[in-house]
Amino acid sequence: MKIGVIGYGYWGPNVLRNMIAHTDAHVSVVADQNMERLAVLKKTYPAIQTTTDALDIINSKDIDAIVIATPVHTHHPLARAALLAGKHVLVEKPLAGSLQDAEDLVALAEEKHRVLMVDHTFLYTGAVQTIKKLIDSGEIGKIQSFNSTRFNLGLFQSDINVLWDLAPHDLSILLYLVGRMPTFVNAIGASHTGNAIENIGYLTMRYDDGMIAHVSVSWVSPVKIRQTLITGDKKMIVYDDTEPTEKVRVYETGYTVRNDEEKRRLYTDYRSGDIHIPKTSTKEALQGVVEDFVRAIQKGTQPLSDARFGLNVVRILDAAERSLKTGGAEVRFAS
Amino acid sequence: MKIGVIGYGYWGPNVLRNMIAHTDAHVSVVADQNMERLAVLKKTYPAIQTTTDALDIINSKDIDAIVIATPVHTHHPLARAALLAGKHVLVEKPLAGSLQDAEDLVALAEEKHRVLMVDHTFLYTGAVQTIKKLIDSGEIGKIQSFNSTRFNLGLFQSDINVLWDLAPHDLSILLYLVGRMPTFVNAIGASHTGNAIENIGYLTMRYDDGMIAHVSVSWVSPVKIRQTLITGDKKMIVYDDTEPTEKVRVYETGYTVRNDEEKRRLYTDYRSGDIHIPKTSTKEALQGVVEDFVRAIQKGTQPLSDARFGLNVVRILDAAERSLKTGGAEVRFAS
Amino acid sequence: MKIGVIGYGYWGPNVLRNMIAHTDAHVSVVADQNMERLAVLKKTYPAIQTTTDALDIINSKDIDAIVIATPVHTHHPLARAALLAGKHVLVEKPLAGSLQDAEDLVALAEEKHRVLMVDHTFLYTGAVQTIKKLIDSGEIGKIQSFNSTRFNLGLFQSDINVLWDLAPHDLSILLYLVGRMPTFVNAIGASHTGNAIENIGYLTMRYDDGMIAHVSVSWVSPVKIRQTLITGDKKMIVYDDTEPTEKVRVYETGYTVRNDEEKRRLYTDYRSGDIHIPKTSTKEALQGVVEDFVRAIQKGTQPLSDARFGLNVVRILDAAERSLKTGGAEVRFAS
Amino acid sequence: MKIGVIGYGYWGPNVLRNMIAHTDAHVSVVADQNMERLAVLKKTYPAIQTTTDALDIINSKDIDAIVIATPVHTHHPLARAALLAGKHVLVEKPLAGSLQDAEDLVALAEEKHRVLMVDHTFLYTGAVQTIKKLIDSGEIGKIQSFNSTRFNLGLFQSDINVLWDLAPHDLSILLYLVGRMPTFVNAIGASHTGNAIENIGYLTMRYDDGMIAHVSVSWVSPVKIRQTLITGDKKMIVYDDTEPTEKVRVYETGYTVRNDEEKRRLYTDYRSGDIHIPKTSTKEALQGVVEDFVRAIQKGTQPLSDARFGLNVVRILDAAERSLKTGGAEVRFAS
Repeated sequence: MKIGVIGYGYWGPNVLRNMIAHTDAHVSVVADQNMERLAVLKKTYPAIQTTTDALDIINSKDIDAIVIATPVHTHHPLARAALLAGKHVLVEKPLAGSLQDAEDLVALAEEKHRVLMVDHTFLYTGAVQTIKKLIDSGEIGKIQSFNSTRFNLGLFQSDINVLWDLAPHDLSILLYLVGRMPTFVNAIGASHTGNAIENIGYLTMRYDDGMIAHVSVSWVSPVKIRQTLITGDKKMIVYDDTEPTEKVRVYETGYTVRNDEEKRRLYTDYRSGDIHIPKTSTKEALQGVVEDFVRAIQKGTQPLSDARFGLNVVRILDAAERSLKTGGAEVRFAS
Repeated sequence: MKIGVIGYGYWGPNVLRNMIAHTDAHVSVVADQNMERLAVLKKTYPAIQTTTDALDIINSKDIDAIVIATPVHTHHPLARAALLAGKHVLVEKPLAGSLQDAEDLVALAEEKHRVLMVDHTFLYTGAVQTIKKLIDSGEIGKIQSFNSTRFNLGLFQSDINVLWDLAPHDLSILLYLVGRMPTFVNAIGASHTGNAIENIGYLTMRYDDGMIAHVSVSWVSPVKIRQTLITGDKKMIVYDDTEPTEKVRVYETGYTVRNDEEKRRLYTDYRSGDIHIPKTSTKEALQGVVEDFVRAIQKGTQPLSDARFGLNVVRILDAAERSLKTGGAEVRFAS
Repeated sequence: MKIGVIGYGYWGPNVLRNMIAHTDAHVSVVADQNMERLAVLKKTYPAIQTTTDALDIINSKDIDAIVIATPVHTHHPLARAALLAGKHVLVEKPLAGSLQDAEDLVALAEEKHRVLMVDHTFLYTGAVQTIKKLIDSGEIGKIQSFNSTRFNLGLFQSDINVLWDLAPHDLSILLYLVGRMPTFVNAIGASHTGNAIENIGYLTMRYDDGMIAHVSVSWVSPVKIRQTLITGDKKMIVYDDTEPTEKVRVYETGYTVRNDEEKRRLYTDYRSGDIHIPKTSTKEALQGVVEDFVRAIQKGTQPLSDARFGLNVVRILDAAERSLKTGGAEVRFAS
Repeated sequence: MKIGVIGYGYWGPNVLRNMIAHTDAHVSVVADQNMERLAVLKKTYPAIQTTTDALDIINSKDIDAIVIATPVHTHHPLARAALLAGKHVLVEKPLAGSLQDAEDLVALAEEKHRVLMVDHTFLYTGAVQTIKKLIDSGEIGKIQSFNSTRFNLGLFQSDINVLWDLAPHDLSILLYLVGRMPTFVNAIGASHTGNAIENIGYLTMRYDDGMIAHVSVSWVSPVKIRQTLITGDKKMIVYDDTEPTEKVRVYETGYTVRNDEEKRRLYTDYRSGDIHIPKTSTKEALQGVVEDFVRAIQKGTQPLSDARFGLNVVRILDAAERSLKTGGAEVRFAS
């Protein structure tokens, strides 16, 4: 299978390295508008062709599949052109910069019977895979809350705000773990750069069954925080992605509520117990992404983060955007 | 000065111990409805009188000042009675369980010329005092964001939700550090106990100048988190109250925004530098609270957390409550 | 049972508090040469008698048992006098300042049929109790190494070096966990105070079966370290006493050695697995010490840290002292 | 400059990557006895020649300098042959497996006027460079102690024990920072593998001025520890190499000793102050090693870890080996 890569900036080199390592994939050409980046590429991988024009890849007869690792506002036009040219597409998250664009791509991919996959890398990490198994096994019980913080001194984006930039990670993890969409979305943010693009954002999602999910994202933090707390009615999980080896901790911690009707009071029995730190796979997540993409093309399997999954992430981002514009008022998904 | 203490549950013993240690204060009587607690008290402090009736203290001619360390819904009736009886009052946070009650107490204290002080203990910690000095010196620059998380497996309260229980800590720190009220308040929460009392809550405050403050509170967390991030346009602060000795960290970290008008792009220069961990006082905060209260009575000074300060905390809680009831919509303070 | 306490400096108040809380113990008198300390005591516990002369306690007909919480060089004369006066004795660690003195006390206690117990507090911690159970259950396997570090900016002692001051903690834990004495002891240290009293010390013990134990102690460290690594041939334990709640961690980590005789090479299969953090009791250790002492007097039971146990700790310290004086050469225990 | 690399196991690929990145170095050939490793190399760097015979490199006319990244027992024969063939040599640490071999190589390099450099990588880290500057500036004061722990579940070596394997890191840091050799060396260890090769080792060095240095190394630890405490009479440093960004911490902590002659007592004034975490360079250390080697060849400069520096490390290891064989007795360096 011949692969072309469009975009060799921050993430492109990582995808490229993992594509090269895949036995069934052959990367033949990489496009980037920046000649210096292409020169660096040439030094390490002299056999790969380079071009400054993405259309060279999209229109190439030789290419079966295209990786799009470019800024978000280019996802739709590039992916659309690639799908129209009959290529399979792996696009960086989020799928597109607007709900309409995302829906258009999903429809086009289905019409063209091409694989359209979004690189929601975190789904493929050992940590998230371990948590998914724990939840699916019933060990954690009914999920009551999901609280995720993703802070660092991050690169300010010019075309999207911090919610569109960072929250896709948390939203993809949330949707993968709980497997369903929330009912209400609220979002608030602040911009300190004068261009009205939020660099701090807070996103809350509420579910019909009382579950609440909260995502805090920031490009303006002196410390890097990537922590997710998941509480079930049996056990609780803390997932700290900055931990080198102990990313997932399972707490035998909880409480049981008893209502004393006569005294009209609430009694709560607290339970504090052992902590378990399961070993998680250290396989590079992007390797899993690449394998899932190649397998979907070769065997027609459904990738974890397929186009419809990516669309759901954009649906929440779109609702968040609408909430942001009305001072944080709740946005309800049509059921 | 003769002191009476009403309430000998969780916090009462701590206030009592610090009152006893104060050279100018003499605790003569303690009231609690629970006889067992009073027995424990008697064992350690045989010289202190005990009673199960708070009125014994309120109506006592011998008592100059009263500490109220009881559930929130009793703050207003007890403090009101004490002020009417001519006593000075130190009441646990929050000042009262509703805005109307809080306003009533403030008016009554002013009318009666009695000290009414709220025990916002955190203002008196070495850490918050250090941060206050750092901010006032200008070293941090203009504050852009305040992000506070206060999570633990906490005691579920029956008369107030988690916002009224835990957020007063963060709100008092915020108001003390920045010295002014926000313009907009949003709040969202979730209850998992069937009594509609939120055990997880998120509170966002926005200021006219673009500053954003966010407070996350939870009674349902396997890990104890008490972390506040404060970002200024010069430096940033991380205040972690769970750290035994290194509670305050100052980061020479930041960014400078340049707008390239021609290219209509945003350029940001990032700055990552040294970290400084100032030594903070390890004096028990409650000792400072007690000293501030006694001094206010003796010398007419104004306590850090006086009645009007405590009222501002309740104003935000009241706005949060109203936002909660409308699905998180923004509540604007009349200016 | 009537108790007298000699010494109300650093540790005395803690023992006193726990003695007072014990239902079967009544502390009637406390001795200390420092009048100010006695004044502080009187303020909190007005019912307890005080004296500046330890002999008032030793010679009192009313006293059944005596706690000795004084500097090490006074342990022998005070405990000797107390035993001769027919009192039971609980003495701070180490039992005495020399092997000869320790042996004398053990012999005297046995002759007088009095309880002589050493306050090796750590044996009574939830953490050490948990580790003891883990080792005794066989889960850890054969112990191969014990590595303990106890560093802080500690009070420099004038009558004993850092090995005699801090290592008794580690030695008591070691002896309790493995239940037998080493064969060889080596010790090296350094003094930076001009009085030839070592403030940094390293102690190594080797056992006949290949097990090695190492203890590093220092009064001169900017950070407090209290970490013990125990490796067995099945699992490994890390005991970090500075952790507030997660003191004991059990690692499913290890290796299996295979020798390939033909290739004369060593092959090692490494095993890295889950980590388990058992909940440990948070009961105050000194409470257990006091209970063990009172029970031994009342019922004739054998305390965990009885006189012979305390003597073994002193035996190792004595050997360490001799090694120190010969530049760290090994000292062999007569078998 | 044409470079040949002998050994493409654990460390070889890292050196290779940094050599390739150097503008003045051209890696033309790599030797390894393992064909599979060479195949992996070919896949990423198809332009580099490979061979299974190190002599192909040593005897090549085209090669100017050779990197030796092979097991320790091969360092001497390979480096000797390379020097005799007129090549410059960069050899992994330690320089050689015995003092005699190390001395032979140093003499040969000087005779042949070739650069012989040892890859003591840690000297080139941002952390060690920062500490070196702090010490040289006088800010830390006179160094009193150096305590280094290097533990992990490490690869058991078959030709050297854990002291020869891991301690060279700590010894090179020590020698670089304090700039002089100790007077006494003691070493103790234990082997649990049946081949009498120690997998746990303790090394103590004492200096004439009272400074003490201690190095603990282990291949058998469930946790990775790389911590060095350096105490001066003004300030103290904690260097934790497992910290991702905050590797060096400077403590304004200390004590001042006063002797009260009359009372024959020691008084110590303790000082606890701020902590400073200087930003350290994140440049890859191996890049600095490669630059130092290339510069030494091109310009005749002296590398930080030149042959004589590497020889001093081996001198201490040799003394440690002799101490090990006499049960830890001190070995004195001839002055």
